[in-house]
Parts: sequence; structure tokens; C-alpha cells
Amino acid sequence: MSLNTFGHLFRVTTWGESHGPALGATVDGCPPGVEVSEAAIQRWLDRRKPGQSKYTTQRREADAVRILSGTYEGQTTGTPIQLMIENTDQRSKDYSEIAKTFRPGHADITYWQKYGIRDPRGGGRSSARETAARVAAGGIARAALAALAPEVRITGYMVQMGPHRIDRARFDAAEIERNPFWVPDTQAAADWAVYLDDLRKSGNSVGAVVEVVAQGVPPGLGAPIYAKLDTDLAAAMMSINAVKGVEIGEGMNAAALTGVENADEMQMGNDGPRYLSNHAGGILGGISTGQDVVVRFAVKPTSSILTPRRSVTLSGEDTELVTKGRHDPCVGIRAVPVGEAMMACVLLDHLLLHRGQVGAGPRGRIG
Amino acid sequence: MSLNTFGHLFRVTTWGESHGPALGATVDGCPPGVEVSEAAIQRWLDRRKPGQSKYTTQRREADAVRILSGTYEGQTTGTPIQLMIENTDQRSKDYSEIAKTFRPGHADITYWQKYGIRDPRGGGRSSARETAARVAAGGIARAALAALAPEVRITGYMVQMGPHRIDRARFDAAEIERNPFWVPDTQAAADWAVYLDDLRKSGNSVGAVVEVVAQGVPPGLGAPIYAKLDTDLAAAMMSINAVKGVEIGEGMNAAALTGVENADEMQMGNDGPRYLSNHAGGILGGISTGQDVVVRFAVKPTSSILTPRRSVTLSGEDTELVTKGRHDPCVGIRAVPVGEAMMACVLLDHLLLHRGQVGAGPRGRIG
Amino acid sequence: MSLNTFGHLFRVTTWGESHGPALGATVDGCPPGVEVSEAAIQRWLDRRKPGQSKYTTQRREADAVRILSGTYEGQTTGTPIQLMIENTDQRSKDYSEIAKTFRPGHADITYWQKYGIRDPRGGGRSSARETAARVAAGGIARAALAALAPEVRITGYMVQMGPHRIDRARFDAAEIERNPFWVPDTQAAADWAVYLDDLRKSGNSVGAVVEVVAQGVPPGLGAPIYAKLDTDLAAAMMSINAVKGVEIGEGMNAAALTGVENADEMQMGNDGPRYLSNHAGGILGGISTGQDVVVRFAVKPTSSILTPRRSVTLSGEDTELVTKGRHDPCVGIRAVPVGEAMMACVLLDHLLLHRGQVGAGPRGRIG
Amino acid sequence: MSLNTFGHLFRVTTWGESHGPALGATVDGCPPGVEVSEAAIQRWLDRRKPGQSKYTTQRREADAVRILSGTYEGQTTGTPIQLMIENTDQRSKDYSEIAKTFRPGHADITYWQKYGIRDPRGGGRSSARETAARVAAGGIARAALAALAPEVRITGYMVQMGPHRIDRARFDAAEIERNPFWVPDTQAAADWAVYLDDLRKSGNSVGAVVEVVAQGVPPGLGAPIYAKLDTDLAAAMMSINAVKGVEIGEGMNAAALTGVENADEMQMGNDGPRYLSNHAGGILGGISTGQDVVVRFAVKPTSSILTPRRSVTLSGEDTELVTKGRHDPCVGIRAVPVGEAMMACVLLDHLLLHRGQVGAGPRGRIG
Repeated sequence: MSLNTFGHLFRVTTWGESHGPALGATVDGCPPGVEVSEAAIQRWLDRRKPGQSKYTTQRREADAVRILSGTYEGQTTGTPIQLMIENTDQRSKDYSEIAKTFRPGHADITYWQKYGIRDPRGGGRSSARETAARVAAGGIARAALAALAPEVRITGYMVQMGPHRIDRARFDAAEIERNPFWVPDTQAAADWAVYLDDLRKSGNSVGAVVEVVAQGVPPGLGAPIYAKLDTDLAAAMMSINAVKGVEIGEGMNAAALTGVENADEMQMGNDGPRYLSNHAGGILGGISTGQDVVVRFAVKPTSSILTPRRSVTLSGEDTELVTKGRHDPCVGIRAVPVGEAMMACVLLDHLLLHRGQVGAGPRGRIG
Repeated sequence: MSLNTFGHLFRVTTWGESHGPALGATVDGCPPGVEVSEAAIQRWLDRRKPGQSKYTTQRREADAVRILSGTYEGQTTGTPIQLMIENTDQRSKDYSEIAKTFRPGHADITYWQKYGIRDPRGGGRSSARETAARVAAGGIARAALAALAPEVRITGYMVQMGPHRIDRARFDAAEIERNPFWVPDTQAAADWAVYLDDLRKSGNSVGAVVEVVAQGVPPGLGAPIYAKLDTDLAAAMMSINAVKGVEIGEGMNAAALTGVENADEMQMGNDGPRYLSNHAGGILGGISTGQDVVVRFAVKPTSSILTPRRSVTLSGEDTELVTKGRHDPCVGIRAVPVGEAMMACVLLDHLLLHRGQVGAGPRGRIG
Repeated sequence: MSLNTFGHLFRVTTWGESHGPALGATVDGCPPGVEVSEAAIQRWLDRRKPGQSKYTTQRREADAVRILSGTYEGQTTGTPIQLMIENTDQRSKDYSEIAKTFRPGHADITYWQKYGIRDPRGGGRSSARETAARVAAGGIARAALAALAPEVRITGYMVQMGPHRIDRARFDAAEIERNPFWVPDTQAAADWAVYLDDLRKSGNSVGAVVEVVAQGVPPGLGAPIYAKLDTDLAAAMMSINAVKGVEIGEGMNAAALTGVENADEMQMGNDGPRYLSNHAGGILGGISTGQDVVVRFAVKPTSSILTPRRSVTLSGEDTELVTKGRHDPCVGIRAVPVGEAMMACVLLDHLLLHRGQVGAGPRGRIG
Repeated sequence: MSLNTFGHLFRVTTWGESHGPALGATVDGCPPGVEVSEAAIQRWLDRRKPGQSKYTTQRREADAVRILSGTYEGQTTGTPIQLMIENTDQRSKDYSEIAKTFRPGHADITYWQKYGIRDPRGGGRSSARETAARVAAGGIARAALAALAPEVRITGYMVQMGPHRIDRARFDAAEIERNPFWVPDTQAAADWAVYLDDLRKSGNSVGAVVEVVAQGVPPGLGAPIYAKLDTDLAAAMMSINAVKGVEIGEGMNAAALTGVENADEMQMGNDGPRYLSNHAGGILGGISTGQDVVVRFAVKPTSSILTPRRSVTLSGEDTELVTKGRHDPCVGIRAVPVGEAMMACVLLDHLLLHRGQVGAGPRGRIG
């Protein structure tokens, strides 16, 4: 019964508001003996950090993480790990105006309707700033995966921004780290820069699709029926701010395929069955097949824009709203490391579950 | 969401195999004093029942539900409700051949790899037959919703079969119950009949997209960050057999929109703020807005087809596989009542959560 | 531990009322490949079965268990196991009188106050009959333990009935199965027979203390801080009907000891540290030490007695109540196999948790 | 599936080690709109704080709590509340010797055997210092109870120290806050001071029994079968460091009673049924009756004593161990506010559960 907690055995509880003193993650269930350090987690946080290009919010946060518990002499001890990130650039401006209106398409109104109280400073708990805590927790998950399943490799990247999709024929993994969009397509990187710059200047924002791939996932992870690997991945990604759709493998396009097209045929290889395609995205019946696990999610455009939109006030009057401040023109960009972090958390969680429920490795042999 | 259980306060654990003696659902957390009967649940089960048209499996199951516990004199008592459906048409044919090969695109292989043992009879636990238990549990959820939130109305229908989408301009809710596809478009119903008939005869199958809409959902349901209403809906739908993608509101299309386009503007109406559009699908920040909650999910084509596909055997030999038997050419059809059932379960669960955590109704007033 | 479910990875949900059509347990998370059969579970159920001596209720129930799911060819498959026991001797007498009064010391009144509806037939869900489902689930847990940790041996017995305690100096394990009280003391067995017979004839009932010991438990089981092994054992035993106290090792008597007395000193033995005493009851810091795990719980006297007691009616009138029917004069007797079953469930659950979180066995070596 | 988390809807996850930089509690599920402040929580922490008399450890900790999230302008917002207490008096002495031996009766050895790594500084996670985080979380629970159920009043006190019990005839609630033992008996306070002083000087320690009573608890709280109110209280108290036994109402003594004696008879009063005794400790069938909820737990003597005890070293040699340092001669004293905090957490949790599952108040009326 987990409201702010994610996971079965590897459990992450995030806490904190955009403009509170700090935010963080309470990580429970990390196996003992895993090497972790603030520096290693920081590396992941720095990728998500705001203010790194003109395409992300200009808020300046060091996002420096502190490990407050759960380690001894650089190793996890099996006890809860507390990760804290202090907020340093909250800008205590006057929020009294913002507190009286609701941004269209934003959680302002629903938090108010649900709780009868809301922290209007920077969006409070509903701010994308919460995802910093996920990335920090993901750093722990990655460290544990490195120890328990070193063959797992997780890579996230953008495949669509607004109407522009990457050209899969030009896919170049090396390009991902070279451009501010994490896009594996040199041409797209150049085109999107122009497109987003124009959009930003016009006071608008735009959506995106992020793809996260995990290679080297052993077969057998996933716990049908209701803790299927794809179920948990769908929940993980959908829980990220602004996400409106999640796909595994063919995703929504699976609807357009016939059974003949969609079947991932198999042949025996030297070390077991080999798949001739991966429409399934590495998951069958909620359990990993050993192929690449492929997840995509759509991030809507941020609702904080400079173009006036019709809205209502707290006291019930019609108004037109313009949101000033430091906002991401394409919040999907910074969702890339967040998607990777969620993938890492889900995979570690299911690796632990599998060990608990079944054994140290896949049980059924073929051939 | 723990392995075979779904939900926070209204918790559903399904059990049972395709060809075992029975299957069912253990429903925990239903409020007391709700009127339920086997007849009322049966009504929902009959909609999902196999063998009702030539477009679904020809297996003949009465799918007769029995309530074994949790009620007294026709009312729930607050104790666990056990719903049992006996399997009557299992056909104890020889499964020894099937047990030695793996259908491409099917959970056969992953269950084997995970557990080292699998029940090959009709797909065992991975059969879509499991969804009968969901529909039964959904019947309880609907009864409780009828008592606690009678304004909620849930409607599911198909919006795509293979490459064919409905024409939204022709949307006719009354048509849904009139055709075997639950499609709200008279023309589509006629076209799809021809299309699917051809496909079935050619030994093939096809995917589909199902949309489920809940009207009358009060604002304020959902528990950020990790039990958001959309998170739980995504998990609920993705956990259904063969689902590969889930969308809320605009879904994957949100990526293609700008912030100006995507903003659901508001105006004050007589009884509170009124939205001028519903790109959000009724959910902002994981909390319901009071608009229609709109979910779509893609169902892949069934992998059990008469067209030969390359596969491997248990002993590690290459083979070509043809799956005979009674299979759905478009398993998405029978997913419609399943999607409705999951929507009912999630909404009831969040209604109870909301009452537990916050109060009897939305707290924050506007105007 | 969520409402009607017990356990973390090995999860048991019991369901059913005393006089409903059936009751049972939904067992989720049993590892695959465990040999189980109805006959093997029946053996445990038969020990708890009513009507076996004049010291237990004269209700005649076969308590025949059926496995409805989760096994294939005599082995568990990793999917949920449904265990059903049909009620056959419910005696559909007139319960209208009983429905209008509340037995003093019984859950009649609190179920009514909580739920506003109650099943008065035989106590409904609050009947000790629910424990049959626990014993069935415990049979699964024992089978899994036999496969995963064959050195574990669980033994329950009575150590006190009313004011009469066993003499530890006369402890004889072989005696336990020879008398109707499961008491390891030949003299006590004889004395208690006379005592309880008199009590029963006088229309009275009496309490008891049950002790359950698990030998061969490996060190390292338990998950601090809130899923400690002793925490979960305390919850498990306290959840049994009529239990009012739970002790680990010295239990309440630990309060009377000094640190010098209570320290379980250690010496190195051939295969690791050896404890010179076991005040701790085999658990330190919530984790098993490798010594015998010792739990005791007190069962209050049944409140259904033939001696008139003052009570109130549903309509608010004072009354004097005599409970006729088939009731246990010492319900603690049949709690012995129930306590054993709970011990088995908790140990298996923690064995699986330990494998999931830490590894296949204890990690820290000494010497 | 909660290892370091306690509760169903009001969930507390504690974190932190005795000598780490900080410890605290992540509190999830507190209703919105509750007035909380660091000062109000501090008041409860100060009661548990070490170094307040010569009868508790001389470690000097300010135990100053900081609220890092979850509140806005002095009120809870419904989001997770992070409570942090920095450790200031850790004394970074040399722990290399301590790391090589195991205190008899202490969790040193089991943490090592389970995790293969342990933080030896001050007992790491197994230190009673963890209970500071519980008391802080309990402060939040008390604030929420004050808002939702202001009639609830929680009082803890000692009823036994070593062989000395209080005289119930001398019970004086006003005395509790006047002596360092929280004992409601002026004579006992004086006697125990002499007794404990002698014991402390002799390098020994002693156990204790703490009783916690909650008055004003509404009838109907508790969720049978496995989240019974007494089950959760037993788990809550047993999870406190050094606790070896838990009793509800008559507790272990219930075994010695007959049904005639144990029945809590009822008479109609002006506002409903009135109980003539409270053997049940306010709980029947796992649900509150409206009477005082009475819980007792036994705390064993601390194992860190100045008297030499036989033990083993990490390298497998026999040794004699004397534990120097700042330890409580009767750790039960400081367990009093901890027991109160756990009671507050459990009651709030069940109040929220009850609202979620059933309604705003008890449903069944009598008279």
C-alpha cells in the first residue's frame, strides 16, 4: 500500500518539494556489500541537472547529493539509505499571485481540489524537481546491478520532439552523449536545436518521446500476473511527471500488426534459443526473454508557458494566465536520465524478487 | 501491487489456470453493505464469455460464478469475497506435444525459463482465461461504485482493429452493444466483420486498441507520486494479457503537441471550473480533474495462429510450429469488458484511498 | 500484512465464514517445483479438525481440502495456489435470536459496530474455523520448507491450561502426539483431562498457553527494523483468534532478569559459535541466531459458555446470555497446529526474503 | 512488503545509524491540513532524549528535529514528511576492537551473519537510537490524532523493573511525569531509584515492563483478520529494540482465567453498551470496543554491561567481553515514550483505514 513508494523489494520513497529546504529518496532493500559513493551518484545527477543548456530551465541547482545512512566504509550495509539533496536556488519570490490561479494543464488545481492546501512555490511536490530524487535512487540501483548483473546496460535517448522523429537508419549510439537532447541521430540533433530555439523564443513548449533500452537482462525476470515486468515498467514510467503514454516493444503499433508479423520467431543458437526479431520488447507474459527490454514513453509539453491561456482564479473568476519564470521548453529532455533511473530501479527490484521467489538464476533449460 | 494482487485498499488476487478445476478472484477490502449477487456479476462475465460469435474462441464455458464468502443476505460484510468459476470445457487432450515446443510470441518460453515448470494445458496461468476472474472482481467493484459514487459510468469499446481505426465523427455510443466488436461506429462494425473473417480464414490474427472512458469521476482521486491515478491505470491495463501500450488522454500523441495546443483551458461554470478541452484525459499530476478519465491500450495479435512459424523445442531443436485449437483471431475484442473491469477496480480503490487519506470528498473549493 | 493477507513474499490470504459454503486460503509466492498434494495438506488439517475428542467442539467437519490451482503434476508452478475447504456441517438452525444479542468477550459486538452488518451464523468470519485455512496454507509452507531448508523442524505443544503449567523437568516430546492436549508431560495430560472434564461439565471454559519451537533455523533470517523475525512472529500469533499475549524466548520474564543473567554467552564450537543458553529464543536484533526459535502465546478462554453472563441486545436492552451449541471448552488445544502453521509460514517467508535481499545463505563468517 | 516501513496508510520508514551523520523518519500518508511544527515534535523527542538522569545513557544528543518536507505554512500538505535528526555526539573513537567481537545477547552477531558487513559504531542500525525517529514520527501521528480524534489520550508508564512491580492500588497518573522512571507509584519511584543505582554501580543492567494505555479510542478500529488492531500493536511493540513479549489486556494471564471470569459483561448505559470490566484490553476480534486499549511489553536488560561475559571473536577465538561506554542500565525507561509513539502511529493508521474502508464512523448502532 504504497503512495510515495515504488518497488517490491528494492523500495524507493521520494520526498521533498521544489522550494523546500531539501528533497531526497529513502532507499530500502538494497543488498549489502554494494560499493556506493556520493561521487558515483553525483555523476548521474549531473546529467539531469538543470541549467546545462539553453534548452532546459535556467534554475541553478548544484544538486549535490549526501548519503546520510545505510553505508559503512563505502559499502551498503543492507539498512535504509537516505539520499538528501539540498535546494539552494529556490528564489523566495512572492508566490501570492501564483497561489491564486491555476495553470491550465498543470497539477496546481488537482492538488488544491484533493488536499485543500498546496505549496505554490515552484509547483511544490508536483514539480519535475522530484525526479532528482529518482535519479539519485537510480544511482544506487545501478551500483547494485553492476555488482549482481554486470552484463545489464541501460541507455535512454529521445526519439521524438514535437512532430520530429529520429531516423532509425541513422541511429548512432555514440551521438547520444554529444548533444543536449540525448538524441542518437546527428542530423536530428542539429534540426531540433533550431526548432526548439524558435519555439522557446515564441513562448511555447513541446512534447517528446523517450526510449529506454536495457541490454543484457537475463531471462526470467517478472512476476505474473500483477507484478509483471512490463506492468511495473509501465507504472514506473507513467509515474514520471508529464508522461501520458507508455509502450513496450511495438507498443501502440502492435494493434496494427497481424499475428504472422508480430511473432518473434526463434532458432537455436550456440547458447540457447535466439530470437529473429523483437516486437515483444524483450518481455513475454510479463517475464523477460533475454532480448533487449525496450520501453518508450511520451512526455507532454510543459504547461508553464509565456503564451496567455484562459484559466480561473481561486475565488472563481475567469482570467488569462502567462507563466513567467525558469521553465523547460521541452521537459522531455531531462526525462531521459529519469527514465534510465526508473529502468534501473525496476530491473534491480525484479532481480531481487526473482532470487527470492525462484532461485539464483533461470530454472528452465532449453536444449 | 504484489505479484498476484492488484490494488491498495480494494485488493484483488486472481488465481487459477486455463485447464485447472477452477479459477477465481479473492476480493479483499470491499466496503460492507454493498448489494451483490451472483446474477449481477454474471451479467458482466457473460459479456466476456468465449464462444459468443465466430470472432472469439469456440471454447464453450458457462463461466458461472459462485460467491463463496464475504456476503450475508445479499450484502457484503467487509470480509474477503471469494469468487469461483469452475472450468467445464477444458478438453483433456494430449498436451505432451505442446509441452515440448514454444509458441513464438507467447509466454510459453518465459514461464519455462523462470519457473522450470509450466502447465502446458491451454497456456496454464498465462492464458487470457485469467481475465474472467478480473471481470468477476470488476463486478464487485462496480456494485460498490454504484453505492458510493453512483454518478460514475464506465464504457469500453474498440477504436482500432489492425490498420482500421474508427471515425470519431461517426461515434455512436448506442452502437457499442449492437455488434460483436463493441465498436461505436456502425460502418466500422460492418467493415471489420469482413476484414476479420478473411483474416481468421487465412490462419492469421490481428491486434486492436481498446478505449475505456469513465464519466462522473469526482475530482481529487489519485495519490501522488507513486500511486497516481494514471500510474495505477497504466499498471492495471498493462497487466492484461497481450497489452503492449497504454495511453492517458492524448497518450503518445502528446509528444507531438505544443504547450499552447495541449493546455486544457478553463472557464468558470455554474458549479465550478469548466474545462474547454480534455487533452489530459481527466488526470493532472496523477489526480482526477472531474473530466472524463480516458484510457486506451493496445492488444497485440494472439500468437496462437495456424500459419507456421519458426521456433525451437524443449530439447533444443529448430522446428516449425502451427497452433491448432480454439483461439481468438482478435483477442482485443474480449479485452473490452476486461478493460472496463480494471477501470472499475482502480476507481473504487482510489475512492477508498481518498476517503482514508483526505476526507469524504474533495477539500479545496474554487469560487 | 494487509487486512486479510499475511506475509511478504509468501503471502497467505484467508477467506470464508464459519457457515458459508466454503473457506480457504489463497497462497501466493510459493516457489515452483515443490511437491504438494491434497493428502499431505490433509494430514495437517486432520490434527486441527474438530470433534476428535470430548475436549473439542462436537461439530463434525471432514475439513477435506481441495487444491484448485497452482500445481501441475503434483508440483507447485509458482502461480497462486487456491486451497478450498467446503463446510459440510453448518446446521442451518435459526440464528435470529443470536443475531440480536452479543456474547460478552466475543467479536459479535465489534464486527457489528465496525461494519454495520454481521454474519451471525457460527460467528461468521470471526469464528476459529478461519484457522483451518491457516493450517492448510501452513501445509504448503511446510512442503516448501522441506525442499528448501529440510533441517527445519517445527513442534507445537501446550505448556499451560488454566492455572496448571507443565513441569519442564518432565518434558517428553514423544508424549505430545499421544494425548488430546498436545502436552509434553504425561502427568499433566492425565491431570488436565480431569480438570477440563469438570470444567466443561460446569458450563465453563479455560485459557491456555501454547509454545511453538522451530529447530534447525539457519542464522540470518529476519529483516530489521519493521519486518524483524520476532515482529512477524508476534503479528502471526497475535492474529490467531483469542490470543492475548505473545512471547519470544524469555518473553515477559525478560523484565525480571539482569543483563548478567540474560546474556546468552558463546563459545566457539567445531562449526561456529555455540550458545550456552537461549534466553533470546533464537532471535537477536530481529534476526535468527541459529538457535531454536521459541515462541509462546496465550489463548483466552472461549466466550461461548453455558454459564449466564450479563449482556445487551441489539435494541439496547439488558439481558442474560447463555451460549448453547458446540464449543471448545479450551480453544487453546486446537490452537497448537495453528501456531505451528503460522511458524511455518513466517519462516518460509523470511527464508525467501533473505534469499531475495542478501543471497543464498548467511554471508558473514566467524572463525 | 515493508522491511523498514511500518503502517498501512500512515506509513513510517525510519533510517539512520547510531553514529552516522543523521537519522530520521519518512512519514507518508499523513492527512493534509494538520498543524505540525518542529517545536511540537521536539517536545516528544525531549522526553526520550538521552542524558537526562543518571539512569540513562550519558551520551549528550540535542535530538533536534528538522522538518525537511511535507508542510506549508505550518500545516501538512498530504505529501511525505521528512524528519531529520542530526547526530552530534557520536565520538569518533576507535571501533576496531569492537568490530572484532560480538556482545552476548546483542544483534552484533546476527547483523554480521545476515549481511556480511556491519557498522560497529555504537551498534549502527541496531542501536536503540533508532527509536528517536519513531518518537519524531509519533509526534506527527499525535498531531493528526489531535485533529481527527481529539478524544484519544495516550499514556505510557513503567509497571515493572526487574523483580519489582508497581502496586496497582497506589496508581497515581500525576506521578508519571514527576520521576525519572515514568512510574505511576510514588513509593516505587523511590525504591527503584535505590535499586537501579546499586545495579548500575555493580556493572549490571535490568529489564522492565512498560504499559501504554489509549483512552477515548472509538469502537470499530481494526481490520480482521491479518491487520487486526491487536496484531498491529503486537508488531509495533515487538519491533522496538529489546522487546521480548507483548500483551493485550490480560495478556499471558488470560491463560489462567476461566470463561466465566474473563467475560467482559455489558450493561446498557446512557450512550450505548457499558462494559463492567476490561480483560480484553479494549479489543475484541481485532477491533476496538471503545474501552481503554491496554498494551504491555517487556524490555530485556541491555546486553552492554561492565560485567565480563564469555563470547567469541570474528576470527573464531573464545574471549571474555566487557562493554564500556555510555549505556542505559535499564533501557526500558526510555522505551516509555517509544511505546507511546508506536501506539499513536497504530491508532492513526487504523483510523485512516477505517475511514477508507467503512465510513466516517462506526456503522452499527445498538439501542
